Formats: sequence, C-alpha cells, structure tokens
Amino acid sequence: MTTFTDVRAEDGVARHSFAVDCAGERVPAVLWAPEGAKGPRPLVLLGHGGSQHKKTEGIRLRAKHYALRLGYATLAIDAPGHGDRISREDAARNMAEVGARVTGQVAADWTPERLRQMAERTRQAVPEWRAALDAAQGFEFVGAAGPVGYWGVSMGTAIGVPFVASEPRIGCAVFGLAGLRPGATEMAEAAAKIAIPVEFVFQWEDAVAPREHGIALFDAFASTQKTMHINPGGHMEIPDFEGASWERFFSRHLGSAGHPARARVAELA
Amino acid sequence: MTTFTDVRAEDGVARHSFAVDCAGERVPAVLWAPEGAKGPRPLVLLGHGGSQHKKTEGIRLRAKHYALRLGYATLAIDAPGHGDRISREDAARNMAEVGARVTGQVAADWTPERLRQMAERTRQAVPEWRAALDAAQGFEFVGAAGPVGYWGVSMGTAIGVPFVASEPRIGCAVFGLAGLRPGATEMAEAAAKIAIPVEFVFQWEDAVAPREHGIALFDAFASTQKTMHINPGGHMEIPDFEGASWERFFSRHLGSAGHPARARVAELA
Repeated sequence: MTTFTDVRAEDGVARHSFAVDCAGERVPAVLWAPEGAKGPRPLVLLGHGGSQHKKTEGIRLRAKHYALRLGYATLAIDAPGHGDRISREDAARNMAEVGARVTGQVAADWTPERLRQMAERTRQAVPEWRAALDAAQGFEFVGAAGPVGYWGVSMGTAIGVPFVASEPRIGCAVFGLAGLRPGATEMAEAAAKIAIPVEFVFQWEDAVAPREHGIALFDAFASTQKTMHINPGGHMEIPDFEGASWERFFSRHLGSAGHPARARVAELA
Repeated sequence: MTTFTDVRAEDGVARHSFAVDCAGERVPAVLWAPEGAKGPRPLVLLGHGGSQHKKTEGIRLRAKHYALRLGYATLAIDAPGHGDRISREDAARNMAEVGARVTGQVAADWTPERLRQMAERTRQAVPEWRAALDAAQGFEFVGAAGPVGYWGVSMGTAIGVPFVASEPRIGCAVFGLAGLRPGATEMAEAAAKIAIPVEFVFQWEDAVAPREHGIALFDAFASTQKTMHINPGGHMEIPDFEGASWERFFSRHLGSAGHPARARVAELA
C-alpha cells in the first residue's frame, strides 16, 4: 500500500504526493482529486512535455479544473531525467535547450545518438507509468473500477503512445505535437495497437514535428474514432480553446464522478 | 420592408418564411429565432449542401438548438437549383445523383462543363445570400448591430467561401467537406481574402474532396485563427461531436443573446 508523503489542499482540490519504485528507480508522483473525495471516479493521467515536470503549470491548472468541474482524479509523474529526478541546474539547462529547439532557434536534433536516448527514455518511462497507475488505483478515492484516460503532448505523446498501446486500462487519449518519422518502427507499431478514441492536436508550423510526420502518426492509430485538430503556429502555441475541447473529450468518454460517460452508457444499454 | 409569408412556432422556436428578390429571381428564405424574441441578437447563416434545401433536417435542428441554447437567429435560403426553386421530381433526382457521388458509388464529376455550372451557381448564390442577409437584419428581432456568423459545408463551403470573402458583416465561419483543386483560382483568391476565425471540418476518406485539396483550402485562408478538424470516414460521416464544437465556436465568437462574445469583450477592453 502506497502512502502519501505530503497532502495539501488548495481551492477545494487536494494534491497527494507519493512515489513508486520501478526497476530500481524511485519515481515521484502526484495525484489530485476534489478535497474530501470518496469512492471511485474517473482518472486522467497527465504526461508532461520535454523539460517540464509533474507539477508544471499547465498540468497543475488542468488537474484542478478537472477535479472541480468533473470530479476527476488526475495523476502525473516526473519522466526519466525530469523534475525531482534531476538537479535544478540540470532542469534549467534542459529547459533552455528544449526551448531553443521547439521555438526553432536551434534545429531539431534527430541524430542517431539522440534518437537512441529518446527511445531509451520511453522504454524506461512506460513501466513507470504502469506502476504509478497501479498505485493510484489502490487509493479508495480513485479505485480500479473507474474509467481511465491519458493526456500528453510532445514528449507526453512520445512516451504516451507506447504506454497507452500496452495498457488496456486506458480508455481514451489526447496526443499531439509529435509525429511519426520514417523508420520509427517502434512508434508505428505502438500507434497501430491503439484503437481507443483519440484526439490528436497538431501545430501547423511546429519546428520539431513536420506536417507530414504529424499526419503519418494520426493515420497510424487504429482507432475508428480519432480526430486531428490542426492549428496555425508553433510548438508552444496551441490555442486555449483546444483545452476546452480536451475537457469535453474526456467528459464524453469518461463521464464525470457519479455520472457514467455517454459512450459507457451506450455500452450498458 | 420584407414581410413574412408564414410564421409558425414549434418547441419555443419561431420559424419565419419570406422571400427576397435578386437579379430577377425570387429566393425562398427562412429565419428562425426564439419565440417572442425582441431586440438585436447574433445571427448565423446556414448554407445547405448539394441536393439539400433550406429546411433540411440538419439545418432545422441546428436552428432550433441555437435559438434555444444561445438565443440566436438563424437564416437559411434555397441555393440556386435547390429546394422550392425546383420541382420535387428534380429535387429527388438531384438527391440521388449527389448521393451516389458523395458515397463514392459514382466518380466525382470534375468535367469542365460541370465546373462551369458550379462556378455559375456560386456567382448567382453570392448576391442572393447578401440580399437575404440585408432582409434579415431589417427585422427588429435580428437587427444590424449583432454579430453574424456563417456555417456551411460541402456546397455550403463552395458558395460560402466567395460569399464570406466579399461580406464584411460575417465575423466567423465554419466551412468543410470541400477542397481547393489545382487551377481553382477564383476559390483560391476568395479564401485568401478571408481573415476571420474559421473552423474547417474535413473527412479523411471523402470521395469528393481529396486530402491534399482539403489541406490546400485550409492553408489558403488568411485567418490567423483557423482550425482544421480531420475525422475518419466519408462525406456524410462527420461525427456528432463536431456539431457541439461548432456551437462552441459560434458561442466563443458571437456570444449569446444579451451576452457579448469573449472575443468581442476583449475588443472593447
């Protein structure tokens, strides 16, 4: 039984810190839920982007929003080489490097060495997500009965696609800001195993994800229900209204606490 | 002053029938609004698809929905060669022909003669829309002060793009199920004049609009705020959740009756 190392409430939302052990690593995790939540509820996993961390602003705000508006629990972990798993100095350097790439100031680095590092990070991250999900479902206010969704763009998609492909508990996913490079067979095979509803958000002038790679990844998902949302602008310029669209996507497929999703109601009928 | 030939209420929504004269043609029009509506309100023009008509089911349901949920007025007209402008026999034959094409049973017809007919229909339709909009804004429960949006996919886009390009009263538009063919210079020039927010819905296996043509049309809009929603399936298979997205799009840009849009509030601030 996992125990919390810290619990604090803010704006009616409780944030529970804990850690899970996986392959010799201690993975920091945080689980949000409405303050005083009891009983099972939908859970959304939030995968942060490169150079970000489990409590990065977008994740924190989305976690609170989903708790207050939908009664959801949300779970985030630090990816390998991110957040509390590295020093503040390394995190700052990482942020500057990634920032330069995604804004196009520095060319995207697709050298074999970098691709190897990224693939290694993904292979490490997938079982870590699984261990964190196991732990989260062990808490009474989350439970194993409720539906689970995944949200993650950019590195959150690079890690999320193989994770979701191998995790039958995930019922729907938001991906984006990433593509399928020619020769990326592991990613292609993972995407082809994903048949759940997917919303895929893509920026048309993304310095690190060319258009044709984005379309190739969208095409690779086996899902019959998948939507690609294309917006102008760069990697960091997803319009705010896409956030509202993600909320409706999860609401449609996961329902809200105490209210099964429309899709799940149809399954029962 | 235009007068109504028929007014009837159903489910709290009033449907006003009238006609406008344009270039020797009498154009049948219908204007929906909440029953008992008084004073200016947002107006959405609804452009039907090929072989359909101004009161086709999707338009009728959307008109009622927008009236009841947002307090909007909505306006639809019969396109040239459609609805009450042709005999029932011709309408049935037209529906069968278009149905065979959009479902891929019959190859899309892009012969020069057909393209010439379509261009001619569009040139006729644009001033008809303008005349109908003039008339609608003359009614007290619509007025000229409120914001105006346009919705139309397929033929509603073929006609809507040149119309919206030439009509400064339109503040936002939903287009879709259509593309930009190489050499379609009139359509390309019209799209390049459109700089308002656009939501563009596209079906990835559309028998009458190839993917690259759809992307070319999306790219051709000058709008800085434009989103392309791609879904799997054919011309007649737009998922229902896109309808909810259109409603939010209009709500975002036009506000609701008595409540200015967020975008317009920002303009005033």
